[in-house]
Amino acid sequence: MLKNYIYDGSKPFKITDVSTDETSLCDEKKKAEKKTEKNAESIDALQQMLYAEKREGLIILFQAMDAAGKDGTIAHVLQSLSPHGVYEAAFKAPTSTELAHDYLWRIVEKIPAKGEIAIFNRSHYEDVLIGRVKKLYETQPQSKRIDPAKIIDYRYEDIKNFEQYLWHNNVRLIKIFLNVSKKEQAKRFLSRIERPEKNWKFSAGDVEERVYWDAYQAAFEDAINRTASKEAPWYVVPADHKWYMRYIVSEIILSVMKDMDPHFPVVTPERLAEFSSLKESLEKEIKEQ
Amino acid sequence: MLKNYIYDGSKPFKITDVSTDETSLCDEKKKAEKKTEKNAESIDALQQMLYAEKREGLIILFQAMDAAGKDGTIAHVLQSLSPHGVYEAAFKAPTSTELAHDYLWRIVEKIPAKGEIAIFNRSHYEDVLIGRVKKLYETQPQSKRIDPAKIIDYRYEDIKNFEQYLWHNNVRLIKIFLNVSKKEQAKRFLSRIERPEKNWKFSAGDVEERVYWDAYQAAFEDAINRTASKEAPWYVVPADHKWYMRYIVSEIILSVMKDMDPHFPVVTPERLAEFSSLKESLEKEIKEQ
Repeated sequence: MLKNYIYDGSKPFKITDVSTDETSLCDEKKKAEKKTEKNAESIDALQQMLYAEKREGLIILFQAMDAAGKDGTIAHVLQSLSPHGVYEAAFKAPTSTELAHDYLWRIVEKIPAKGEIAIFNRSHYEDVLIGRVKKLYETQPQSKRIDPAKIIDYRYEDIKNFEQYLWHNNVRLIKIFLNVSKKEQAKRFLSRIERPEKNWKFSAGDVEERVYWDAYQAAFEDAINRTASKEAPWYVVPADHKWYMRYIVSEIILSVMKDMDPHFPVVTPERLAEFSSLKESLEKEIKEQ
Repeated sequence: MLKNYIYDGSKPFKITDVSTDETSLCDEKKKAEKKTEKNAESIDALQQMLYAEKREGLIILFQAMDAAGKDGTIAHVLQSLSPHGVYEAAFKAPTSTELAHDYLWRIVEKIPAKGEIAIFNRSHYEDVLIGRVKKLYETQPQSKRIDPAKIIDYRYEDIKNFEQYLWHNNVRLIKIFLNVSKKEQAKRFLSRIERPEKNWKFSAGDVEERVYWDAYQAAFEDAINRTASKEAPWYVVPADHKWYMRYIVSEIILSVMKDMDPHFPVVTPERLAEFSSLKESLEKEIKEQ
């Protein structure tokens, strides 16, 4: 049922062809919220098994235009998870130490260990989104052997290889693009100005960034087409209705975790026999005290 | 002149075809030692420019059979470098935290920043050397979707991609295999037993490992053939004569650093003008005190 939202390299992605406000899989807000809640519980149960089994890690990566709802979606869908084995890695503008390194350096540090879930709030895709739109690489010193005109192509290639490496090394990767319309973004910026409890989220720079809207849309389209693969598919989620976006995100995460199929480790008969003798000695100790 | 030692993918490497004790580029020990010393001075001068320019980082990676002389070579060729901007990363048996992660996790952490030199004492190649010979991956939990028979092939592919990524991202990589003979290894183990000041380096396990000699040789041959590239060539250095090995290693490092061609940053005329006004005010201050 999610197949309309999945891009795994088998079909092209055209950003102007997809709707940002459709609600085809559930058109009632109340119902969607109920389902989201139920999905969150199932995700929680699967996470406990993933953590206990320690075979595989999971990265849930979010990219979006400003105000599309990354933070709120992460909070709503994933806040019921125990922080034990689950963490968020937020990749903001790189620090000077990060800039002195290759761009995957800070990303790799946050790759989850087996059994862990990492939520990537932005990611290495920043380097082919804002990095491309603003040509940030031109402001950084580069080796003379590097042709700046090739940098973005190198990045697509290297990111694809990197994600294949993750697949080979027991890390599943879910890449989610929250797709909001320009009009809906304007409305959300307005509400950040008008509602005092949202003021802290507002920055004038975000509004100024809107002149680059088309360039960003093209960068998203390109990034998705160039890096979509069976091992690391993109999910493009309509983001104009927050309740629907959150519901679809919960469905995506649940479907991948079901496919990962984690189980509590099976206790061997030998260990079980050991358990009963340990049980006896514990009972004895309690009685004697 | 180093071309006999370079494997960049343009010719096959056959380990039984190369000599471990030839000294074709300098057959006098004294002369070679003098040259090594002179090379170390040139490397030092280039490192200072590399550090000042901060355009590119450098990894000098060493792999070898035990007792081939990694530690001694690193000490002799590179000890004259200032620790400022130069460090050694020794990759020993992975810790439990490292084992819970993908195998490049601990490697990427040690990638040098622009301007830095990292000396890798062992590296990600351990995962296709001892990791392959001892099938260490079989002792680690893996996702059910991973076919263990394909793991080593995945690693060759991913390592090649990783090294291409480094090339794209301002990191030069020198991969050096110190190629010692089985007989010379036996002699060096003997001297670790016989000479008290070398006793600390001896471990019985190292001698027991000699039964896997042929398997390790095959693993080295394969690893070099599968990962040699123009961007990240292998250098196979005869290691039976320590003085010759050190000399050749110094030649390799010097040749690559010359090719990197670092320069002190050029000061602009504007900055120079600023200098002279700052000079005046400093002089004035000193006079008035």
